[in-house]
Amino acid sequence: MGINVGIIGLGRMGQIHAKNIVNIPDANPYAACSTTDASLEMVKREFGVKETYKDYEEMISNPKLDAVVIASPSGMHTEHIQLAMEKGLHVFCEKPIGLNIDDIKRTIEVIESRPNQIFHLGFMRRFDESYQYAKKLVDEGAIGELTLIRCYGMDASSGFDSFLRFAKKSKSGGLFADLGVHDIDLVRWFTGKEIKRVWALGKNTTYPELNELGELETGAAMMQLEDKTIALLVAGRNAAHGYHVEAELIGTKGMLRVAQEPEKNLVTIFNEHGVVRPTQQSFPERFQDAFRREMVEFISCIKEGRQPDVTAFDGLQGTIVAEACQKSIETNEIIDISY
Amino acid sequence: MGINVGIIGLGRMGQIHAKNIVNIPDANPYAACSTTDASLEMVKREFGVKETYKDYEEMISNPKLDAVVIASPSGMHTEHIQLAMEKGLHVFCEKPIGLNIDDIKRTIEVIESRPNQIFHLGFMRRFDESYQYAKKLVDEGAIGELTLIRCYGMDASSGFDSFLRFAKKSKSGGLFADLGVHDIDLVRWFTGKEIKRVWALGKNTTYPELNELGELETGAAMMQLEDKTIALLVAGRNAAHGYHVEAELIGTKGMLRVAQEPEKNLVTIFNEHGVVRPTQQSFPERFQDAFRREMVEFISCIKEGRQPDVTAFDGLQGTIVAEACQKSIETNEIIDISY
Amino acid sequence: MGINVGIIGLGRMGQIHAKNIVNIPDANPYAACSTTDASLEMVKREFGVKETYKDYEEMISNPKLDAVVIASPSGMHTEHIQLAMEKGLHVFCEKPIGLNIDDIKRTIEVIESRPNQIFHLGFMRRFDESYQYAKKLVDEGAIGELTLIRCYGMDASSGFDSFLRFAKKSKSGGLFADLGVHDIDLVRWFTGKEIKRVWALGKNTTYPELNELGELETGAAMMQLEDKTIALLVAGRNAAHGYHVEAELIGTKGMLRVAQEPEKNLVTIFNEHGVVRPTQQSFPERFQDAFRREMVEFISCIKEGRQPDVTAFDGLQGTIVAEACQKSIETNEIIDISY
Amino acid sequence: MGINVGIIGLGRMGQIHAKNIVNIPDANPYAACSTTDASLEMVKREFGVKETYKDYEEMISNPKLDAVVIASPSGMHTEHIQLAMEKGLHVFCEKPIGLNIDDIKRTIEVIESRPNQIFHLGFMRRFDESYQYAKKLVDEGAIGELTLIRCYGMDASSGFDSFLRFAKKSKSGGLFADLGVHDIDLVRWFTGKEIKRVWALGKNTTYPELNELGELETGAAMMQLEDKTIALLVAGRNAAHGYHVEAELIGTKGMLRVAQEPEKNLVTIFNEHGVVRPTQQSFPERFQDAFRREMVEFISCIKEGRQPDVTAFDGLQGTIVAEACQKSIETNEIIDISY
Repeated sequence: MGINVGIIGLGRMGQIHAKNIVNIPDANPYAACSTTDASLEMVKREFGVKETYKDYEEMISNPKLDAVVIASPSGMHTEHIQLAMEKGLHVFCEKPIGLNIDDIKRTIEVIESRPNQIFHLGFMRRFDESYQYAKKLVDEGAIGELTLIRCYGMDASSGFDSFLRFAKKSKSGGLFADLGVHDIDLVRWFTGKEIKRVWALGKNTTYPELNELGELETGAAMMQLEDKTIALLVAGRNAAHGYHVEAELIGTKGMLRVAQEPEKNLVTIFNEHGVVRPTQQSFPERFQDAFRREMVEFISCIKEGRQPDVTAFDGLQGTIVAEACQKSIETNEIIDISY
Repeated sequence: MGINVGIIGLGRMGQIHAKNIVNIPDANPYAACSTTDASLEMVKREFGVKETYKDYEEMISNPKLDAVVIASPSGMHTEHIQLAMEKGLHVFCEKPIGLNIDDIKRTIEVIESRPNQIFHLGFMRRFDESYQYAKKLVDEGAIGELTLIRCYGMDASSGFDSFLRFAKKSKSGGLFADLGVHDIDLVRWFTGKEIKRVWALGKNTTYPELNELGELETGAAMMQLEDKTIALLVAGRNAAHGYHVEAELIGTKGMLRVAQEPEKNLVTIFNEHGVVRPTQQSFPERFQDAFRREMVEFISCIKEGRQPDVTAFDGLQGTIVAEACQKSIETNEIIDISY
Repeated sequence: MGINVGIIGLGRMGQIHAKNIVNIPDANPYAACSTTDASLEMVKREFGVKETYKDYEEMISNPKLDAVVIASPSGMHTEHIQLAMEKGLHVFCEKPIGLNIDDIKRTIEVIESRPNQIFHLGFMRRFDESYQYAKKLVDEGAIGELTLIRCYGMDASSGFDSFLRFAKKSKSGGLFADLGVHDIDLVRWFTGKEIKRVWALGKNTTYPELNELGELETGAAMMQLEDKTIALLVAGRNAAHGYHVEAELIGTKGMLRVAQEPEKNLVTIFNEHGVVRPTQQSFPERFQDAFRREMVEFISCIKEGRQPDVTAFDGLQGTIVAEACQKSIETNEIIDISY
Repeated sequence: MGINVGIIGLGRMGQIHAKNIVNIPDANPYAACSTTDASLEMVKREFGVKETYKDYEEMISNPKLDAVVIASPSGMHTEHIQLAMEKGLHVFCEKPIGLNIDDIKRTIEVIESRPNQIFHLGFMRRFDESYQYAKKLVDEGAIGELTLIRCYGMDASSGFDSFLRFAKKSKSGGLFADLGVHDIDLVRWFTGKEIKRVWALGKNTTYPELNELGELETGAAMMQLEDKTIALLVAGRNAAHGYHVEAELIGTKGMLRVAQEPEKNLVTIFNEHGVVRPTQQSFPERFQDAFRREMVEFISCIKEGRQPDVTAFDGLQGTIVAEACQKSIETNEIIDISY
């Protein structure tokens, strides 16, 4: 038996979640919904999915379902959340919670009206072992009071072509909504404070086609938090060495860095190039374990009847700040954020 | 349904294997055998073990069992393997395969007489992602032909007291049989060659009680392989910084190191001590994933009807070399190894 | 014989320069000027200084002098430069070239009116081996076109008390004029571009007395360069682990970091804290060799009759940007820089 | 004035010493002796050498000389030392002190009969900042009592051709006499103990021509010291990544490594190869500063009338152990060392 989960969207993230659910003893990837026949066939074969659908509402009407995992395009998240909540299902939703602030606010109202159903937002970095280790150290006071936090999120150059295809099909929402939103969440998670003012900049050099798409090769934002803590964010699409997601926390008694170098494993190579640490190339590789752990937590929350630490409100705040970054890039001015 | 596994021995390793079997979709920790009631109760509660036994032969006579995991004291391994093979069960056995060369040889005869039953020996390092990455590079010729291999296996000082209690109860077989045997296996695995000559040395300083137990604080061995490749092994019980398992491969076109520093995760701390990488403290921490992967491989081998790469013969060779190291320490002379 | 140098100011920097001149075969620390008798006695004894003065104009009137090294308080630099240039002396001046933009401009006029006299400004980082190595790689195109540069300059906590005594006596000009000016110069040196817009922030936590002094524990600035390259600067007074001066260059084909960790030497310690790299604690330690090399370059320029790469104009631009940072911190607004 | 030094031998080492003497205020490279006119012309022009000779005895008869630096071929060291000592000169001699044990013993007698003349042997590693830092930590008890020391000395592949030319002209004495002798000295220096038993092995793969020359691509030795401390040495001619000189000290309370990675400087490159630390390529690069510091020490010893810590006896012991290693390689047996 166990908890029956339906999955909407069978792209890269939908498949990752399906695979992880297979390996959780008390859960099954019971149903899946996609517009692509091949994907539906695949998840039946690979993950033992029992029932497949082309229509989302039909799937969530199946009374055997306990929960739904939403990995559909970002623009459909709020609708899919609301429908599932109204059917009485527990919901795990990939980030972002939505692309439009008003939609998100309405969705949060629906979520909050049903406190007995679990809602879990996919900020998986909070479930990464290294980030959790750093958070624990910070919370224990190991580096004193925070004065500055720096977060990098740069995709590997090797993934640039597939990003371009993706961006041409569906709006990513811009560098900060798409990539930076994870780092915005980390800033809020580590500091426990809200972001008040932001200035963001961008530069396109290698790929002029990014200009037409409203995308950036490299972007940066400086932020002032409500308690004057400083945040620096860098995001990009073109890291030659791989998938570079790094965080730095400067405190009054020390400093921490998470993934200063995106080490692939424990191997060091000494060759004609010098002393080389191989690097990670993509988010599925870097956060493989975090994706697994967040899904375990979602299932545990359902079983134990408790809400996870990461909330729909965190999703709202992330999107508000990402939107401010985007506006700042367009105006080249500081944006004051009101919530 | 899936493959029903019985586990003999519920110490640290038995529990690790039980937990990993729970998380393999096609396998169940169906039965367990231990002399300790509390352990049997625990695995029922924690891992859903269905039937518990105090007698090993009774457990393996249960017709519902498909396979057995042997995590009993080293001295009982050969007997437990033979009995299980004769009952027609697939067998996963913790290292070492045995403590006595003749016993091991007889056991291998039993194993080889039943080629349709899987036999898997717990040299888990071969399933560690970093070691596999290094092995692949070596096999692809990335560092040319090997001239020297250096392997370290040092337990953390923090675990010394528990080692001492263990060593007082049951003979570990000495530093090289207990710890070094993993590194001996790595030397054979990486080079594909047998070890011909060995000289081993030891030094006890901190803990004089080790002398009485025939144990060493720090030991080292130099080995000559059949093709003149050189192997250097260091093993120890007293690494202040943690569990240090490292390998180095020097080739004609480059050099590789696995776990040059026993990095706990991706966090770096900058504090009054300097720039600090936190370290791993124990083998369950370092090889958590390798233990999981070797069990997945064992179950896959059963399902797919194929034998694993690591064989009983590897276990025999490891024990022969470890015995030679021990003899060399006692005589302070080079030992020629004949197989 | 060789080139006779007079030194004004015998604080930490004056002594460093005196010592380095001793070790240059073709130069002598011939004279020194200070208000402190003990310092004058010391340099006679330690460095073989021949003549000592309490009055600067008296010293530079000595016809035996060829050059002067100015290490007096920052507020006196422009006057000391002008007087020395008018006496026909070659001038090496510690950074900053001055605290007031108009004074600096007048001083540059004097310098430029005497093109046969060498003027060398003490941006010693340009002479550090690691920075030079990075600059060469960037200039060769190893990392493509620059999109972002990040520079850190943080003093060690261990030096905080002495900074406080210094700051109470004489205005440092603020975090960016005092510390950040080196990083501003690096931004201009690496990119070859001028800085157009800047927003700077600060936070004081540990030391409330900094507020009264107009100083900051941690500060950061984001800058937009004329070609849209982004610069991020962090400066601070309270790095628990030591003197942390780091630079990062993100390019379209790769990324470089200089002193990602402020490694003291090539030693790594494995102990109860983890894997530890000892760190540098102060600028005389970190830039010992750069100070030596810049003085060798100054003497070489004199002998070879050529001007150094680092110019008085670089000093002017650095001060203009530092002033903009300071103004931004006071107003919490973006400052547009006009030169 | 200052101390007038004569240099015999103007190969790579002779030139390094000449250059360093130029930069010591109280010393002059007064004279030089070589069979090569071009070299003599060069040192006149580059280093201001006043008098040049083709005959060694003629040079050391010049009454203006205070000291001699011996950088002639190894086979001539003992003769050159004796002649210089007898002329009353202070002597700095490159390692090794000699190739023949009896010659060395006779030379030591001459040296010891003239206690007022300084004798300094060129074990420059003892003057390297990182080694000195490690030695201080060990002496202070930071890592407890030593149980094992591991030393690597591997030349870069890039220098292999020039080694081969050198080895064809003049016997290097073998891998351990030529390269390993530095590491033998480090073992003795760090532990303060003598080496009693040794087994050495070698392997040639890439360069078959080494066999004819009695040289090795990769060699290793395991040693037992008089207090049972274990030493592991690796030496080689073919390190693809550069000049790799590393030391490791395992103690009862911690572990130290010197130059675990042969970092060229503080730059880290992130590119398509991964995260790359550029490496050092040769001993003049790695030990540039150590060569400078040992020469400063030699001149200081002369001025202050005291003998340096590193003695002719250290040279004798190093050669005895290197000879034992060579004999062990030839016999493939353990050699007991008697002094």
